[in-house]
Amino acid sequence: MPASLTDGQLNSHKQQLGAALEKADLDLVSILINADIAVGDIAHLLETTPHKHRLTLWDFVADALQGEVLTHLNEDIQQSFLARMSAEEIVETTHDIDNDDLADLLQQMPEGRSSRVLQLLAPEERSQVEGLLAYPEDTAGGLMTTDMVTVRGDVTVAAVLRYLRKISLPDALDRLWVTNRQFHYQGSLALTVLLTAKPSSLVSDIMNTDIKGIRAGEDEEQVARLFERQDLVSAPVINDDGIVIGRITIDDVVDVISDSAAHNMMSMAGLDEENDTYSPIVKSSQDRAVWLGINMATAFIAALVMSQFEASIAQIVALAVLSPVVASMGGIAGSQTLTLMIRGMATGHIGQSNLTWLVLRELGVGLINGSLWAIVIGVITFFWYHQVSLSLVIAAAILVNICIAVLSGTVLPFFLKAANIDPALSGSVILTTLTDVFGFLTFLGLATLFLL
Amino acid sequence: MPASLTDGQLNSHKQQLGAALEKADLDLVSILINADIAVGDIAHLLETTPHKHRLTLWDFVADALQGEVLTHLNEDIQQSFLARMSAEEIVETTHDIDNDDLADLLQQMPEGRSSRVLQLLAPEERSQVEGLLAYPEDTAGGLMTTDMVTVRGDVTVAAVLRYLRKISLPDALDRLWVTNRQFHYQGSLALTVLLTAKPSSLVSDIMNTDIKGIRAGEDEEQVARLFERQDLVSAPVINDDGIVIGRITIDDVVDVISDSAAHNMMSMAGLDEENDTYSPIVKSSQDRAVWLGINMATAFIAALVMSQFEASIAQIVALAVLSPVVASMGGIAGSQTLTLMIRGMATGHIGQSNLTWLVLRELGVGLINGSLWAIVIGVITFFWYHQVSLSLVIAAAILVNICIAVLSGTVLPFFLKAANIDPALSGSVILTTLTDVFGFLTFLGLATLFLL
Repeated sequence: MPASLTDGQLNSHKQQLGAALEKADLDLVSILINADIAVGDIAHLLETTPHKHRLTLWDFVADALQGEVLTHLNEDIQQSFLARMSAEEIVETTHDIDNDDLADLLQQMPEGRSSRVLQLLAPEERSQVEGLLAYPEDTAGGLMTTDMVTVRGDVTVAAVLRYLRKISLPDALDRLWVTNRQFHYQGSLALTVLLTAKPSSLVSDIMNTDIKGIRAGEDEEQVARLFERQDLVSAPVINDDGIVIGRITIDDVVDVISDSAAHNMMSMAGLDEENDTYSPIVKSSQDRAVWLGINMATAFIAALVMSQFEASIAQIVALAVLSPVVASMGGIAGSQTLTLMIRGMATGHIGQSNLTWLVLRELGVGLINGSLWAIVIGVITFFWYHQVSLSLVIAAAILVNICIAVLSGTVLPFFLKAANIDPALSGSVILTTLTDVFGFLTFLGLATLFLL
Repeated sequence: MPASLTDGQLNSHKQQLGAALEKADLDLVSILINADIAVGDIAHLLETTPHKHRLTLWDFVADALQGEVLTHLNEDIQQSFLARMSAEEIVETTHDIDNDDLADLLQQMPEGRSSRVLQLLAPEERSQVEGLLAYPEDTAGGLMTTDMVTVRGDVTVAAVLRYLRKISLPDALDRLWVTNRQFHYQGSLALTVLLTAKPSSLVSDIMNTDIKGIRAGEDEEQVARLFERQDLVSAPVINDDGIVIGRITIDDVVDVISDSAAHNMMSMAGLDEENDTYSPIVKSSQDRAVWLGINMATAFIAALVMSQFEASIAQIVALAVLSPVVASMGGIAGSQTLTLMIRGMATGHIGQSNLTWLVLRELGVGLINGSLWAIVIGVITFFWYHQVSLSLVIAAAILVNICIAVLSGTVLPFFLKAANIDPALSGSVILTTLTDVFGFLTFLGLATLFLL
C-alpha cells in the first residue's frame, strides 16, 4: 500500500493528468497514474476525470491494482467498468480483493453475469461469497467480511501466538473473536491485551465480553450508530444461533456514515448520492429532469389554487405581489423543521416514541416565529400599501401558514417512513406543495373575504 | 466499557426513562441511567431527554462516568453542563478522559474559566493540554491525542515487546510510531506485524513506511479524506521539524466525517449541526428566527421586482398566476446544482481547477432541461390560457431562468468560498433570491414587452 497523497499533491496530480489526457499524451498519462500512489487516490483521480477520458485512464491502471481501485469507486463508475469486462476478466481483476467487496460488486450486476462470475471462482471462495450474497447489502451481513481470526477460550495466550504465526492476518485486525467449541461467540481479545498478556494465561480469562455480537440481519445504519457510540474499530457478526460468521471493520462503517449523511443532503435536492459529477451531460440532464418535472407539477398545483382568485387579484394587484412572500415564509419554516426531523431520524435522536412531544414543541416554535414574522411582515406591508386591512390579512396568513408548515414538517417524515417512502427524497416536494397551496389559500382566501 | 445497546433496546430504555422522569420517579431514573450501559448510550439518552429534565438526569449519572459521557455529548449540551460546574468540579469530572477530549472541552469555555481549569491540572498533564490547545480545533493538531506509543527503529522486536509490557497501552492502538534518536517520524509498526515477527528482527526492517506523518496544521477535513482514501485506523501527527507529536484515531475522524456531512445538510436550511433537538422552545425559535428573517428580506426583494409590473399584471392576471411557476423552476434547478457543488467540494471531487469545465457542463445540462421544460410548460400554458404569445413568453422565461440558475449554482459556491463565506449556509438564500428576481424579471419583462 503506497503512501496516500495530501489534497494539495492530489490536486496538482489531477491537473497534470487532465492536461495529459487533453493532449492525448498517453505516455505521460501512464506515468502519472502508475506513479506510486494509493489505490484510494487512483480511484479519486478516476472519479474526477471527465467521462470521455475515464476509460482511457482506466486501461492504464496496472492490472494488479484494478481490483482494489474498483472497490474504491462509486457505484455508477464501478458498473460502467464492470459492464465492459467478461466474467473471466472480472474474476482475474478481483482475485485479490476482500470477499465482502467482491460480493458488493456482484450485487450490482445483472443476475446472469454475477452467477457466471461465481461459477468461475474457486469452490471455497465461491461458497464464502455466496454466503455473503445471502445478506441484503444494507445489513450487518452485507457489510461484514468473513476474513477474521477466531480462537477458542480454553487455550493459552502462547497457543494463540503460535497459531497467529501460522496464518496470514487480515488487515486492520485489532481483535480476535473468542468462541467455544461450538463456535458460539463468547467475547473478543484485543491485540493490545494479547501482546502484554502472560503466555500461560487462558484466553477466556483475559477476553473482553463488552463487545456483543451483531446479528447478521441488523440494519447497517444501526451498526454505524453502534460503532459511533462505542468507538469500535471492528465488531463480530453472529447468526441466529450465536455462531460467529464474520467481522465488520470501521472502514466499511465510515462509508455507511458518509453515504447516509450524503444521501439525506442529496435526496433533498432530488439527487442520488452515488451520482457521478463527471458523467456525460445527457445522463446528468436525465438524472435531474425527473425532479424538475415533479416540482413543475407541484408549482402548477399552486398556480391552479392561485388562479381561483384571479378576480380578487384583478381588483387588488398587491395580492399578486405579496402571495409569493406568504408561500415562501411557509416553505422556509417547513424545510427547517423537515431537515431537523430527517437529521434526527438519521442519528436516532428522533423516533415514533417522542412524536407527540415533538409536534407540541414544533407548534410552539411555529407560534412564536409565526407571530413574530406576522407582525414584521404586517408592518412592512402597511408602510408599502398603506392599508390596515391588507396588513392584517397578510399577518394572519403568515401566522397560519408557518404553523401549518412546521406541523407538516414534523409529521410528514413519520408518515412517509411508515409508508416506506424516503422522507429526504419526497419530503421537501410534498412540503413545498403544502406550504404554497396553503399560503395562497389562506392569504388570497382571507383577502377575498375581508378586502372585497 | 459496558456493552452498547442496540437501537431497539435503547429506544425502550429511552421510553421507560422518559416516563420515569415525567412521573418524577427518581429512584427508577437513577436505576435506569446507572444500568450497566455504555457511556455513548448514556450520552444519547441525555441528548434525547427534553431540556427541562436533562439536568435532573445528569445529576444521576455516576461521577466516575460523567467525564466520558461529557465527551460524547453535543457542544450545546456540554456547555450547558460545564457552565454549572466550578473549575474544581470540571477537573474532578474530567480527570480520566483523553487529554485531546479535555482540550476540546476547554476550547469551548470562556478564556478565564479554561485557564482556571488548566491551573488546577497536574503540571505534566497541563503542559500536554496546553500543547494541544495551541492548535485550532479544526486541524490535525486539534484532532490528535498525545496518547501514543513511539519506539526507535534500531531496537529489536523483543525489546519492543518488553517495553510494551512495562507501559499502559492506549485504547484503539493498532500501530506504534517508529522514530530515530531525534524523534523524527520514520514509519509505523502494526501490532499484527509485531505479533508475528521474529523477536530478533529490527523494527526498522519490518516497519511500514507508507503511512506518512500528517502535519499538525493540516485541515481536519483533509485528514478525514486521507483516512477514507487509505482506510486508516490511526495516523501519526508531526510538527514542522518532522518530529512525532501525536496520533489521530479513526473515532475522532468518524466524528469529523458525520459532522461535516451534517453541517452541509443543516446549513442549507440555516441550521447548526450542533443544534440540540431537545433544547427549550424559545431557544429553538431564536435559532431559526434569523434564517426566516433573512429569507423574508429576499422574498420582499422579489416582491419589489414583481410590483414594478403591477400595471401589466392588472391587465393580464394570468401573469400573477404563472410567475411563481417560473421562479420555482429556477429555484429547483439552481439548488440541484448548488447541492452537487457543495457535496463535490466536501469530497474534494470539485475544485477551482475544473471550474471552467464545470460551468460549461452545467450550462449544457441547463440548456437541455431548460428547453425540455420550457416546451412542456409552454404547452401546458397554451391549453390553460389559449394564448400562443403567453405560452412563448413563459417558455422563453423558463429557459433563461433555468440557465441563470444552474450557472449561479455553479459559480456562487466558489465566490463564497473565496470570500470565506460558507457556501452551504448562505448559498441557498442568495440563489433563491437570484432565481426569484430573474424569474419575475424575465417573465414579467418579456410579457410587458410583447403582450401589452
